[in-house]
Amino acid sequence: MSELTIWTLDWVPEGPRGFVRDLRLRWACEEAGLAYEVRTIPFEGRETNHLDRQPFGQVPYLNDGDLQIFESGAGLLHLARKSEALMPRDPAGEAQALQWTIAALNSIEMVTVPWWFLSISGDPDNKMGGWMTQRLGHVERILGEQEWLAAGRFTVADLLMADVLRVPKVRDFGDRPASEAYVKRVTDRPAFKKVHAEQIRQFEAADAARAPSG
Amino acid sequence: MSELTIWTLDWVPEGPRGFVRDLRLRWACEEAGLAYEVRTIPFEGRETNHLDRQPFGQVPYLNDGDLQIFESGAGLLHLARKSEALMPRDPAGEAQALQWTIAALNSIEMVTVPWWFLSISGDPDNKMGGWMTQRLGHVERILGEQEWLAAGRFTVADLLMADVLRVPKVRDFGDRPASEAYVKRVTDRPAFKKVHAEQIRQFEAADAARAPSG
Repeated sequence: MSELTIWTLDWVPEGPRGFVRDLRLRWACEEAGLAYEVRTIPFEGRETNHLDRQPFGQVPYLNDGDLQIFESGAGLLHLARKSEALMPRDPAGEAQALQWTIAALNSIEMVTVPWWFLSISGDPDNKMGGWMTQRLGHVERILGEQEWLAAGRFTVADLLMADVLRVPKVRDFGDRPASEAYVKRVTDRPAFKKVHAEQIRQFEAADAARAPSG
Repeated sequence: MSELTIWTLDWVPEGPRGFVRDLRLRWACEEAGLAYEVRTIPFEGRETNHLDRQPFGQVPYLNDGDLQIFESGAGLLHLARKSEALMPRDPAGEAQALQWTIAALNSIEMVTVPWWFLSISGDPDNKMGGWMTQRLGHVERILGEQEWLAAGRFTVADLLMADVLRVPKVRDFGDRPASEAYVKRVTDRPAFKKVHAEQIRQFEAADAARAPSG
């Protein structure tokens, strides 16, 4: 096993392909130039087959040598310590990257994911809509004023915020040109394109393996 | 101004008293024995009067000398670096405390806060209910097996998880004896009791200041 091993599912349906959160950790490793291996657990039984490693039955989780870490946000902050490419080393830049990483998790994704869930649940009166308008409006204002969230350059905070904002339903919510330009700017990065293509290819290859053999 | 300054609102209605998130940062400072000062911004105009310091119009935010940090989760991780009382220094303990801190923010609070919001919005068919049952069930299982989330002792992860779980509507959701014992255990800590009482007193004093002078 490599020093860094990112664990994900061996297969997912088409919908989540390109969005499964192991992508966040692969992307961080690519940005930082860290060697890593991707390993998988079975999709079948995923809600209970790895509770000893991820107590909510989710992916990804990370091995770093003997260390074991779950939660993609925690994995990102752990990896960010290894590379200035992800996290500035000066205290002010580090504080900015930390606060915007947590903002992506707890101020934005805390609204976008439940809103998305209610919207695919066919709720005609999505009560999270007002909150979406407000929070995404604040992000739009910030991104209209600055190209990156922290320290005047790409950091782990942009990786995470862009990953939260690039969800198609979120991207289509309202007219937010600065946010749209930001998502394009961040997902145009070679490291994103590489890992995105690799995740899609991995799940496509798993389709072939699952096809009936006769 | 002290080295550490925690900013909150100068007044809030009775409902949120004892729950405004500056409490998380006060509590962390007390656990760590860090000197801090609490300062306030006006409740009136709170949605726009401090967007230059907290881009979502929320509290708390933190000053640490020249550093400025918003998001209570980021403030906690920043304070945790200053004290082993909050965050173990060995890599395995640190990874555990980090992952459970992020889990409190992104796996639990991401479900409890929208569920709570839908429930106070009078939604008779709260679509977040299934998710609540599942996630809080996983936490209950873990807390049935271990007293603390990380490193076999109280850490910043317990401070945050207990603060998420102690919300009355969340506490009353289902029968979860291990979680209830955990909330009691953590909120029985002298540091919690001290800052909880201080927050209540601060807002009560502000009532008096707001009363018409006759």
